[in-house]
Amino acid sequence: MRSDGMDQARALADAVDEGRQWDRLMTLARIGAIPGNGVNRQALTALDREARRLIIGWAEDAGAQISVDAAANLWLRKEGTDPAAAAVLTGSHMDSQPEGGRFDGIYGVVAGLEVLSALQDSGVRLRRPLEVVAWTNEEGSRFAPGCMGSMAWSGYRPLADFDEIADPQGVRFGDALSEHLAAEADLPRRPLGGRPHAYIEAHIEQGPRLELEGAHIGVVTGIQGSRWFTVTITGASAHAGTTPMAVRRDALQAAVRAIQALNDLMADPLDRLRFTIGSLTVEPGSSNSIAGRVRFTIDLRHPDAAFLAARGDAVEGTVRSAVGQAEDVAITESFNAPPLEFDHAVVAGVVAAAEALSLRWIAMPSGAFHDAQLVARVAPSGMIFVPSHDGVSHNPAEFTTGPQLAAGTRVLAAALAAHADTTILS
Amino acid sequence: MRSDGMDQARALADAVDEGRQWDRLMTLARIGAIPGNGVNRQALTALDREARRLIIGWAEDAGAQISVDAAANLWLRKEGTDPAAAAVLTGSHMDSQPEGGRFDGIYGVVAGLEVLSALQDSGVRLRRPLEVVAWTNEEGSRFAPGCMGSMAWSGYRPLADFDEIADPQGVRFGDALSEHLAAEADLPRRPLGGRPHAYIEAHIEQGPRLELEGAHIGVVTGIQGSRWFTVTITGASAHAGTTPMAVRRDALQAAVRAIQALNDLMADPLDRLRFTIGSLTVEPGSSNSIAGRVRFTIDLRHPDAAFLAARGDAVEGTVRSAVGQAEDVAITESFNAPPLEFDHAVVAGVVAAAEALSLRWIAMPSGAFHDAQLVARVAPSGMIFVPSHDGVSHNPAEFTTGPQLAAGTRVLAAALAAHADTTILS
Repeated sequence: MRSDGMDQARALADAVDEGRQWDRLMTLARIGAIPGNGVNRQALTALDREARRLIIGWAEDAGAQISVDAAANLWLRKEGTDPAAAAVLTGSHMDSQPEGGRFDGIYGVVAGLEVLSALQDSGVRLRRPLEVVAWTNEEGSRFAPGCMGSMAWSGYRPLADFDEIADPQGVRFGDALSEHLAAEADLPRRPLGGRPHAYIEAHIEQGPRLELEGAHIGVVTGIQGSRWFTVTITGASAHAGTTPMAVRRDALQAAVRAIQALNDLMADPLDRLRFTIGSLTVEPGSSNSIAGRVRFTIDLRHPDAAFLAARGDAVEGTVRSAVGQAEDVAITESFNAPPLEFDHAVVAGVVAAAEALSLRWIAMPSGAFHDAQLVARVAPSGMIFVPSHDGVSHNPAEFTTGPQLAAGTRVLAAALAAHADTTILS
Repeated sequence: MRSDGMDQARALADAVDEGRQWDRLMTLARIGAIPGNGVNRQALTALDREARRLIIGWAEDAGAQISVDAAANLWLRKEGTDPAAAAVLTGSHMDSQPEGGRFDGIYGVVAGLEVLSALQDSGVRLRRPLEVVAWTNEEGSRFAPGCMGSMAWSGYRPLADFDEIADPQGVRFGDALSEHLAAEADLPRRPLGGRPHAYIEAHIEQGPRLELEGAHIGVVTGIQGSRWFTVTITGASAHAGTTPMAVRRDALQAAVRAIQALNDLMADPLDRLRFTIGSLTVEPGSSNSIAGRVRFTIDLRHPDAAFLAARGDAVEGTVRSAVGQAEDVAITESFNAPPLEFDHAVVAGVVAAAEALSLRWIAMPSGAFHDAQLVARVAPSGMIFVPSHDGVSHNPAEFTTGPQLAAGTRVLAAALAAHADTTILS
């Protein structure tokens, strides 16, 4: 890293405007607002599009060019002095959990936008283009699995794979995507895919460590692996008052047996495994009808690849033997991301930026998965965490202060500038 | 019962038209039709009103007067020779389960209507008025609990008690009722309540006994008791990837513990107890969020009052000790109907009618509850069952043949006529 590079990086970080960033986040939080300061803004909805128009307007004010790709990922770009150079990329996602907060995802997009605005305000000139991306459907709460935008962009799965996936109202992803792209037909289209020089994603921690340890910045070293399964158990619905217990094929009772067996399978004395059944639906779902069909999800995460593989591979056998013969069982694995280590040079760049700005940092893995996990397939990648109050996330109570968010954005700005100005990684 | 009364009863039974009754049932089954020959017609919906208009038209053809009461119970009445005499009443309900069939409930209304048509066609003159009622919201699948119409009419609970109960879309019962009554403002209004001379409800068996024993008619001697509970467990939603298992307050895992404990409590070697968890909902219900709140229903039934009371009274303690301290538990009992024995004279009248028509009958209790359970509070009551193929009910595959349905209606006609012509019960 050349010394004038570090000067540029500092100048850019200094131009980050805490108030402007906070105001933008609070303005966006009104789009899909729910009680308790929460946000419910699902991917490819009218609310999503409304939020994207705000981002686009601010990006145009910052002199950025706007484009969208076939997966509806939204791109904001400011050119550098070398138009042929690969871009330095930052970004995150704009969709939320159904009962989500004001910061998860959207912070990383607004932080990237703030760097564009700081670039405009400061007059700093970088060699490489700087791009900000808002990835489509990271949460996976409307269309499962999550990270569809970054999966398609990185080539991990073809976009067409997701077409038939329906949301809870029966809308196909392919149709929602077409509707969305039609509504953004005024935006230039760019190809799906690319090879950025580096990718750095800013995000709230979604856990308590930074707050507990009094650190400003989490330098993310990697992401634990995730496996998602959907289990469908089909029994026979019948009248609750007339059907003897002995002849029932009760899908809900079979699901309870399956969950008990999974609890035993997933026991982990070290408490590093994360095992969650977050969604369970019952059909017909009437109090006086025996359940004919139950669907539930399994979310499994662990930092060790072998441990995750062993427990995940045992899911199907465990469920089948617990359910028994009377009911039908179908199990699909909708997502399988092995544990990831981020690029050492990108991680080192984040450390250098935090040091240069005199911020307290700790190195940590990410418990949640992020689009960076997919981007890392095609570009050197890393992440920056800022504190989450009480570790709360995926909840309206999610909170990070304006100064904490600005500190993260200054580290992001400095780290991006360092990569944009040098050839350290290429 | 005078001999000319039995002649009248036979003449009325002979005028029951199997084809007309079947055609009416199949026409009604198109309103709210779902795949597999099923019906989803929820109480106080536009589909409900559409079906009621068909019934009203056919009743007018049969020379009946139409009226509606404050609970939206629909009344069809043909006068007898003694306008001052208390009416003989039959009826059932027109709403269905969400994945229901073509016969549950609606058969009893159409059978009553068929008796009115037979009365018109045959020229039989009865002393007492004959009334047919379609009770509002028997199933309880849109607004729980069921039997709201007959509960309000019989004085078991004030109608206003139900106003604030919301359907899954958040619509209040009070608002749905007002909207419905406004749409039927052209119909004469009658007072809520009454003292009929006798009540006989025809219904499909919803169990396999009649078919297995080769009987045409079930003479229903009583109804087992029912207790319904709703359990709400509140934990704390949090991120599935970042929250250690040890600190979770997972409402779904707490619900699984509660259901395991309830399964133990409800064990019954005689298999006479019916214990069903038919509805269970999870909030926020996202695969990568820990469940913050779970609501589930308990449907408990048994023919013995003491047995039912003991198990029902143990529900709350069992759930609380299984869930433990970390989550909050709220339990409400939404319905409590003790076991019922029907009026001996009405039961004897059904037997006499079946005998007179040379139909094979067996005496049996009802496993399901019915509006007759409420009507029995204010009038001598009984029920007539017809066979259910394979015992299937609350399911699109529910099936009874036209001749089986007509046999039940002939017994109904004869039994009603006998009560309408005599003073045996008064």
